[in-house]
Amino acid sequence: MTKTKFYYFNLRALGESCRLLLTYTGEEFEDNRVAMEEWQEMKPKTVFGQLPILEVDGKQYAQSNAICRYLGRKHGLAGATLEEDLIIDQNVDFLNDIRTKAAAVHYENDEAVKAKKHEDFSKNVYPAMLSKLDEIIKQNNGHLALGKLTWGDFVFAGIFLYLKTMLQMPDLEEKYPSFKKLYDTIFSFPKIQDYVSKLPTPVYNF
Amino acid sequence: MTKTKFYYFNLRALGESCRLLLTYTGEEFEDNRVAMEEWQEMKPKTVFGQLPILEVDGKQYAQSNAICRYLGRKHGLAGATLEEDLIIDQNVDFLNDIRTKAAAVHYENDEAVKAKKHEDFSKNVYPAMLSKLDEIIKQNNGHLALGKLTWGDFVFAGIFLYLKTMLQMPDLEEKYPSFKKLYDTIFSFPKIQDYVSKLPTPVYNF
Repeated sequence: MTKTKFYYFNLRALGESCRLLLTYTGEEFEDNRVAMEEWQEMKPKTVFGQLPILEVDGKQYAQSNAICRYLGRKHGLAGATLEEDLIIDQNVDFLNDIRTKAAAVHYENDEAVKAKKHEDFSKNVYPAMLSKLDEIIKQNNGHLALGKLTWGDFVFAGIFLYLKTMLQMPDLEEKYPSFKKLYDTIFSFPKIQDYVSKLPTPVYNF
Repeated sequence: MTKTKFYYFNLRALGESCRLLLTYTGEEFEDNRVAMEEWQEMKPKTVFGQLPILEVDGKQYAQSNAICRYLGRKHGLAGATLEEDLIIDQNVDFLNDIRTKAAAVHYENDEAVKAKKHEDFSKNVYPAMLSKLDEIIKQNNGHLALGKLTWGDFVFAGIFLYLKTMLQMPDLEEKYPSFKKLYDTIFSFPKIQDYVSKLPTPVYNF
């Protein structure tokens, strides 16, 4: 069996959840942080022209959530039944709905459109969705699903700072302490702390 | 065991993939088509305030792709290994990336912004993504993944007309015959044909 290889930019963003899962589960992996100049050459050789990429036994796989689900199922961090897996999946997808909304604002190039959209979403979209997410985490004993640690928690912790940046909410944790608590749960694991202590610098704030 | 119940608006959009899977797999289900006036009352009682909802043994589940994955795994339309499941998942997520891009245009309220974004995406985003999707389907023997029928094919067929509307590409099938072929594969199954023949009217074009 060849070593697992992971490829992503030197960012947290969409790749960090996978790195956290690989680290926590003890799956030995090469943490390849792809520089922009390398990416241009690498891009056409990837599954969809996107990162992250997970390489297992020489075969490449793409899409961050799909990779996290795979790692979770492989390492006992998934549900015990199909229905339990469905609950993790639905909650992760709901988290992604929030991320997608925030990304639509964050990646808007037209500053005027961006400001207007941010105002609209901050009033009409984010509060209900974030309250629902808060409710879910509270109902699940501080976790994203099933009332216990699952791969979904790593998706949450991995994208949290990215999400916070895109939401433009520096006070996100103060508003929703359950979010910080879940983030801290993941980042308190000794293996994760060790990983963080060895991170190459600079790591961007998202 | 109680009967499976499915709730969605009287649209294809995000609910049709689940209906097609329920129909194809022969899982008896109540096809509840929720009217807007009912929805206001129902919304706070749903998992995330969103449709579709699948109800199995009295328990509600949400998120269309999560539901499709569940139905696929339950009825033998998933992978034989975790790696095969990962391939279906990554390809479905890539399809969703395209849908999300198109939805960001389709649901833009500002007509000037919408027109500009459509022009931008039609030039810089859609061609590469749709070509990649076309390549994937061709490499997979006319299917979305694994070279054979999986639940991913039902996701594709279920959102195809919706996607076409959002992409504003009436000639999508002419440009990519592989898309039409896969759509036809699903809609040629006798059970699906029977389902379509009994659809309540009007069914919207997305």
